[in-house]
Amino acid sequence: MISRQQLIEQIKLKKSFLCVGLDTDIEKIPSFLLDYPDPVLEFNKRIIDATEDLCIAYKPNSAFYECRGISGLQSLIDTCKYLPKNCLSIIDAKRGDMGNTSEMYAKTFFDEAASGMNFDAITVSPYMGHDAVTPYLKYPDKWIILLALTSSAGSKDFQYLETEAGLLYEVVLQKATTWAGADRLMFVVGATKSTEFTNIRKYAPNNFLLVPGIGAQGGNLSEVCHYGMNADCGLIVNASRSIIYASKGKDFADAARHEALNLQQQMKVELEKAEII
Amino acid sequence: MISRQQLIEQIKLKKSFLCVGLDTDIEKIPSFLLDYPDPVLEFNKRIIDATEDLCIAYKPNSAFYECRGISGLQSLIDTCKYLPKNCLSIIDAKRGDMGNTSEMYAKTFFDEAASGMNFDAITVSPYMGHDAVTPYLKYPDKWIILLALTSSAGSKDFQYLETEAGLLYEVVLQKATTWAGADRLMFVVGATKSTEFTNIRKYAPNNFLLVPGIGAQGGNLSEVCHYGMNADCGLIVNASRSIIYASKGKDFADAARHEALNLQQQMKVELEKAEII
Repeated sequence: MISRQQLIEQIKLKKSFLCVGLDTDIEKIPSFLLDYPDPVLEFNKRIIDATEDLCIAYKPNSAFYECRGISGLQSLIDTCKYLPKNCLSIIDAKRGDMGNTSEMYAKTFFDEAASGMNFDAITVSPYMGHDAVTPYLKYPDKWIILLALTSSAGSKDFQYLETEAGLLYEVVLQKATTWAGADRLMFVVGATKSTEFTNIRKYAPNNFLLVPGIGAQGGNLSEVCHYGMNADCGLIVNASRSIIYASKGKDFADAARHEALNLQQQMKVELEKAEII
Repeated sequence: MISRQQLIEQIKLKKSFLCVGLDTDIEKIPSFLLDYPDPVLEFNKRIIDATEDLCIAYKPNSAFYECRGISGLQSLIDTCKYLPKNCLSIIDAKRGDMGNTSEMYAKTFFDEAASGMNFDAITVSPYMGHDAVTPYLKYPDKWIILLALTSSAGSKDFQYLETEAGLLYEVVLQKATTWAGADRLMFVVGATKSTEFTNIRKYAPNNFLLVPGIGAQGGNLSEVCHYGMNADCGLIVNASRSIIYASKGKDFADAARHEALNLQQQMKVELEKAEII
């Protein structure tokens, strides 16, 4: 587990707020890895070894493991165990279900004795309301990262609806901040809408925001920082494909490091500009 | 797989629109089953054997399996294989993520060669919009069951918000019915709001509605039918705990059958009343 204070310390120490997304697709990893007993685990280990001094979080995307059945789940469990303790481990699972079911999902991802996995944080979908969210808070020191504004085309279908209490994603921010404090609750905010970070900070001034959409999805880091950073940094910026698939060859881990270093260097500049370091 | 027409035929044949929810919690099943190699699978098999002539669908709740890690997933895979082919097999997974991730979840639950599982239908959360939904439609003949109105307390947080285009759940119904036809798309509609079925039928006259909340959650079957049934029945009513945990003893399967039969008999009356059979 990693507290808000520890997370901020890691950001200052590493001069980085990078999250490496482990969306590891067995069909996209270098083919020489297929000779290993668990090619996905081997790939992840090498990516982690090559980037752990440059990032403060890792985020395996559960779907990429689940789709391989038992062997995929084993890769996820073993990847979870391998993640460095000084990094925030996020399971990108987008779960969201009623109370007694959310309790089971919390057990799945937070209770190592039950499932083999012990992540620090889980992404959760808000549609079913507080029931879907609060059961995860029963695990002390664990984090919920609630979907607010996402970066794909479908985000326009519902998240921007004008409601009686503001845009739907604004209502999500307003309500959810009454369910948990900034020490337990983060939000997913898509980086393709960087000007909206100003608006988001009105409702969630202190919460960390997990920002996908840098790299392969095309967000602009410096804009995100300009509008979204707070006094504690308050941002965790994720890059997945641009890092982990930077090369398809034997040099994939070096290439991943090169990409991560490039982002970390840009992040260092932003942290200095904001006088956080 | 089971088409809309086949589903309607099964409803007429069995005089039932019951779905048995396999929310199987290893801590709640009769203790003598713990001597079996896979107690959850053994429990599910006996529940299925005892109820398959009385119901037209089964719905394992993914969380209850995932929380047991590898052995839980194995129970789910083996349960999926055991489900009778003339029943609709629904994985209650409440997934909802962007396009490339939804493709992976579709593979997880629909592609037996990839994961070991081949469900007919999956429950999906709408928050991320059409990206989160349409990838499942690439699998011919598979069903999406989209969350519209849920039955737990948290449903009031967002689903009833008044928006520029109607209540949020109404907008979900309006938009989603443009993404797929009633031959591929159903909706989850909580049974604790039976009078709202009239309203829901305005937007989704032909879609099947999966109705949880009968039994343990306290919904009223005859009200649901009065307001929600259409000419093809159009309802799949789920009961989980009230059936599967009807007895904690060695007679649990008989007790489950007794409960299922009770519901099926009530359903028969409703089908006759509506002149569907």
